[in-house]
Amino acid sequence: MANISVTVTFAAAQALLVALPAIADPLPSWNDTATETAIIQFVERVTDPASDNFMPAADRIAVFDNDGTLWSEQPAYFQGLYALDRLQEKANADPSILTSDALKAAAKGDMKGVMAGGMEGLIEILNVSHSGMSVDDFEADVREWLTTAKHPQSGLVYSDMTFQPMLELLTYLRDNDFTTYIVSGGGVHFIRAISEDAYGVPPQQVIGTEGKTLYQVVDGKPSLLKDGGISFVDDKAGKPVGIDRHLGKRPIFAAGNSDGDFEMLEWTTSGDGLRFGLIVHHTDAEREFAYDRDSHFGTLSKGLDEAAKRGWVVVDIAKDWSKVWSGKQ
Amino acid sequence: MANISVTVTFAAAQALLVALPAIADPLPSWNDTATETAIIQFVERVTDPASDNFMPAADRIAVFDNDGTLWSEQPAYFQGLYALDRLQEKANADPSILTSDALKAAAKGDMKGVMAGGMEGLIEILNVSHSGMSVDDFEADVREWLTTAKHPQSGLVYSDMTFQPMLELLTYLRDNDFTTYIVSGGGVHFIRAISEDAYGVPPQQVIGTEGKTLYQVVDGKPSLLKDGGISFVDDKAGKPVGIDRHLGKRPIFAAGNSDGDFEMLEWTTSGDGLRFGLIVHHTDAEREFAYDRDSHFGTLSKGLDEAAKRGWVVVDIAKDWSKVWSGKQ
Repeated sequence: MANISVTVTFAAAQALLVALPAIADPLPSWNDTATETAIIQFVERVTDPASDNFMPAADRIAVFDNDGTLWSEQPAYFQGLYALDRLQEKANADPSILTSDALKAAAKGDMKGVMAGGMEGLIEILNVSHSGMSVDDFEADVREWLTTAKHPQSGLVYSDMTFQPMLELLTYLRDNDFTTYIVSGGGVHFIRAISEDAYGVPPQQVIGTEGKTLYQVVDGKPSLLKDGGISFVDDKAGKPVGIDRHLGKRPIFAAGNSDGDFEMLEWTTSGDGLRFGLIVHHTDAEREFAYDRDSHFGTLSKGLDEAAKRGWVVVDIAKDWSKVWSGKQ
Repeated sequence: MANISVTVTFAAAQALLVALPAIADPLPSWNDTATETAIIQFVERVTDPASDNFMPAADRIAVFDNDGTLWSEQPAYFQGLYALDRLQEKANADPSILTSDALKAAAKGDMKGVMAGGMEGLIEILNVSHSGMSVDDFEADVREWLTTAKHPQSGLVYSDMTFQPMLELLTYLRDNDFTTYIVSGGGVHFIRAISEDAYGVPPQQVIGTEGKTLYQVVDGKPSLLKDGGISFVDDKAGKPVGIDRHLGKRPIFAAGNSDGDFEMLEWTTSGDGLRFGLIVHHTDAEREFAYDRDSHFGTLSKGLDEAAKRGWVVVDIAKDWSKVWSGKQ
């Protein structure tokens, strides 16, 4: 009798263990709100072969903006902060590189002066800080900076400021045979420096703004050199164009946070069959930052106005997320 | 006794069946030459975990040129022949579109006149024949043309002029967990129209020359419009740049046939670890075309001069392939 009893208990424990993965919450850092429910319902529908909304795995393409969607973007895009850091180092070594007001402002860390230089000034800063080295050296330098330099307000290293709920969402989608892409206004080499480590997204699934790259052979050794200038801007209407250039397929799931993502959301959600559009709304000044219509970075206005009409789900960080950053807080 | 004998025979038959896939020739249209041996040795080495040359599956990236490597390219690139066909149709409907000598020559099928217009003339022809329609409509039109229009010399439909040995090579590499990419000087939308059907290569694994694409919303319906002009030329030194933009990884296997592939072969084979460079040399005037140094299309000169020094394997079509085109001949 004793023996049989032990056997039954063991079988029950086994059954429980087998059942566990299905019971476990795939999105533990998402509160139990309508937002989480909407995401899970969408995934269950498109993956259920018996559902009218079923999509084969090859069509399960999900695209994610990066700045403000997968990690923070205040007080400025992290790539901009990296550019300023590196520009200051270069200027300390050789002040003659500061040939314009925007560059001089940047070297002093004067953000107002930088913004006054507009897009032209920003491109100058990127040119000086992001060129004259190989793609490999650049990515290694960015990786080092993102994992050691500290954010001025949070005190965290930048790579710890990815959003834990979004990492869970990426994993949840991949577990359901989605292919996850990053589609960012940021530079493709900058993001690739950590996309695999931080997000589980390999380099070939990163679409971004592209700087000019030059193939050169020096002493018989070929390399790819980051040259000055920008050859493709992956923002606003550039996002569907970038998706077409790289993917050649319309995604069925898109996540963004700013009006720079509007066209990507529009393009994704206007395709046939069930689609999902998600906007991350930064509402939590206590745990992260609160901003939308009037922000210099990540302005969100048209998206807020049209989300309901277009059936896009708006994430309210303060209410929907139980944890914000992936790193210690 | 009889029973036991039957059992043994059955087991032997089973063992044979299990062993069969390993015995079967993975490249049946390749003759038993040093070329086939070199390919198979390479694949066995990089996939054998016990080998010093082992490469994890994520790094097994193979890139293939298209024109002249995966299908024929004489008497002109098939995309050029498509452009002439469509230009002639458009000009019949509206002769006023023929605003230059190159366009007038093209509309008459006067190849000499077209070539006299140089690259500028060719771009004009592409602009007129490849723009003013959505990407979806363009790809559908190309697909229809490639599977119904007939090649002027072979009498085959163009999609039957893919190279059977190269189709087998693509499949063989994929069966060994390679990811196969097309990296072509041809237009990315043109190739995508049949890349999945013809080569088993999905749209996101096609890298090519890119025309300008415009995102537009008409009556609330978004679409991608093929606009005039070329934004990226994926040829010569542009090939490693295109590979970097899309893939962000250096391939370990590259196949090409012309000097337009030289830098792609150089970039691929100069990486660390075991690499493979393959050049398809068109030597078979009887079954296909014979050309190299003096050809207008697919000039191969530097590649022939340097292949041996660089360890690249040169395919001699006449000797190495038992079958050329995939379609009936």
